Amino acid sequence: MSIHVNPGSAQAGAQGRVHREIDPGQEAVEAKLVENVVASFADCPDPRLKELMVALVKHLHAFIREVRLTEQEWGAAIDFLTRAGHITDDVRQEFILLSDTLGASMQTINVNNAAYKDATEATVFGPFFVGDAPHVELGGDVAFGAPGEPCWVEGTVTDTDGNPLPGARIEVWEADEAGLYDVQYDGGKRTARGHLFSAEDGGYRFWALTPTPYPIPDDGPVGQMLTAVGRSPLRAAHLHFMVSHDNGRTLVTHIFPEGDPIGWNDSVFGVKESLIKKFERQPSGTPIPDGRTIEGTWSKVRFDIVLAPPGV
Amino acid sequence: MSIHVNPGSAQAGAQGRVHREIDPGQEAVEAKLVENVVASFADCPDPRLKELMVALVKHLHAFIREVRLTEQEWGAAIDFLTRAGHITDDVRQEFILLSDTLGASMQTINVNNAAYKDATEATVFGPFFVGDAPHVELGGDVAFGAPGEPCWVEGTVTDTDGNPLPGARIEVWEADEAGLYDVQYDGGKRTARGHLFSAEDGGYRFWALTPTPYPIPDDGPVGQMLTAVGRSPLRAAHLHFMVSHDNGRTLVTHIFPEGDPIGWNDSVFGVKESLIKKFERQPSGTPIPDGRTIEGTWSKVRFDIVLAPPGV
Repeated sequence: MSIHVNPGSAQAGAQGRVHREIDPGQEAVEAKLVENVVASFADCPDPRLKELMVALVKHLHAFIREVRLTEQEWGAAIDFLTRAGHITDDVRQEFILLSDTLGASMQTINVNNAAYKDATEATVFGPFFVGDAPHVELGGDVAFGAPGEPCWVEGTVTDTDGNPLPGARIEVWEADEAGLYDVQYDGGKRTARGHLFSAEDGGYRFWALTPTPYPIPDDGPVGQMLTAVGRSPLRAAHLHFMVSHDNGRTLVTHIFPEGDPIGWNDSVFGVKESLIKKFERQPSGTPIPDGRTIEGTWSKVRFDIVLAPPGV
Repeated sequence: MSIHVNPGSAQAGAQGRVHREIDPGQEAVEAKLVENVVASFADCPDPRLKELMVALVKHLHAFIREVRLTEQEWGAAIDFLTRAGHITDDVRQEFILLSDTLGASMQTINVNNAAYKDATEATVFGPFFVGDAPHVELGGDVAFGAPGEPCWVEGTVTDTDGNPLPGARIEVWEADEAGLYDVQYDGGKRTARGHLFSAEDGGYRFWALTPTPYPIPDDGPVGQMLTAVGRSPLRAAHLHFMVSHDNGRTLVTHIFPEGDPIGWNDSVFGVKESLIKKFERQPSGTPIPDGRTIEGTWSKVRFDIVLAPPGV
């Protein structure tokens, strides 16, 4: 079946746009349909699924009625979803990009990670985490040769009462200076990612790369949508963290360099004020924390991580 | 990129479901995000596209916030859309099936085909129309050998003042008694569809097949959704019409046999009271309208079609 659009709707579409008054008879026809669709879920054996479907139907119909969606626009939506489905494969997820660029991913994070005292705020997980990132010792380098300016990252992991959380597992991952994650290259390399564990005093430290802005993959329907609406595909520069400990709520977040040119215009709405950190650039020749000197500039940043209690 | 769900959300998910009070700080964080996403469309050069995107974002976020969508549920939605995309091809359109089964297609029809005086009501277009259906003379047979009980269809095409509309183009199409449209068979046959033109007095008549209920294609994610929520994939029996004339608004509709066992439980919500017609079964041996006698039973139905004026 290909997508045929009712030829009659060219006429009707024009009407929709003028937002004329909807007469009570028409209103009743539309409301009755919503009622019928909602009623069709009456026998759903799973109460949560029923709640989700009923709410989805109500919002979907409210959207169609509010904007007086034309049949051409409906057809364009079907076509958009079809193209998004066809570009999606094992290494490209257009529906996640769509969710991200509409802020739906970030809102889901907000809903599931309510603020708790001074616990560090969460942000989007993103599609680039992998479970098998290499382990590094405290002070080790997660870059593993990925190109970019070295960045020294240090801080502590504590609970909301200020107690150190030793042995917290800290996963970090980021794009290289070309704007690409390792998984976006062929060959299965593991670079610019790793995991380490906090020390007895909750402290942690490692080398990574100074984050730089990069575009989300924009050669598909989501990229076309961003172009059509006048938006940039660029993400604010960031370094990903996922921090877990038995005595804390798992935290998924980023830190963002202060003064980043993209900043609040992040294409996936991941920036939060509390997650913007000062990445201090060190002139070439400045000795590094272990006393050696490295070629070229490097940066350093402090990020003290506070985990909410488990289950809040 | 594969779909990774934030492992922290197993905890948070459980919270979402209890629908606890949202504190004002959390409320503000969520509302601020909606505001930021809406603001990202500020420079959209197409005012209608901007209106659509802003309304979509508002409803999408309202849904997520209202149901306190968990990250697992978000992941399931991404996976559902991905599977729908992958099963969709030139002869299968899972996104249209999704739209149909959520009543979104029917609501779009409602919005674009407001009632006008006693004009015949519209219903869903469906995915099975083709543009090259054969022409038949008045009184001809559109079955072209498709299996099913013969059905004599007759009526008139008039405007809402009762004036005949001669030369109206009447496209008809339907499933055979196996529940399949010609395009669902291999080989490109054209059966159980055709077009004809109304006579000088607006009258029309043709042979078709008595419609029977059939399931929408239910071996994909939409079928799985229907099973999960306890719904049937069956469509009420119906015969499709599309009627066009220079002096009328193009009408896309069905007629439904009175007493159909599916009826109002139509899986795509296409049934309207005014479109339910008496298909009178004729005993075997009853002479047909042109005086001959045919083997077995047949049915007859009258459908007087009233077109609204163009552009209403």
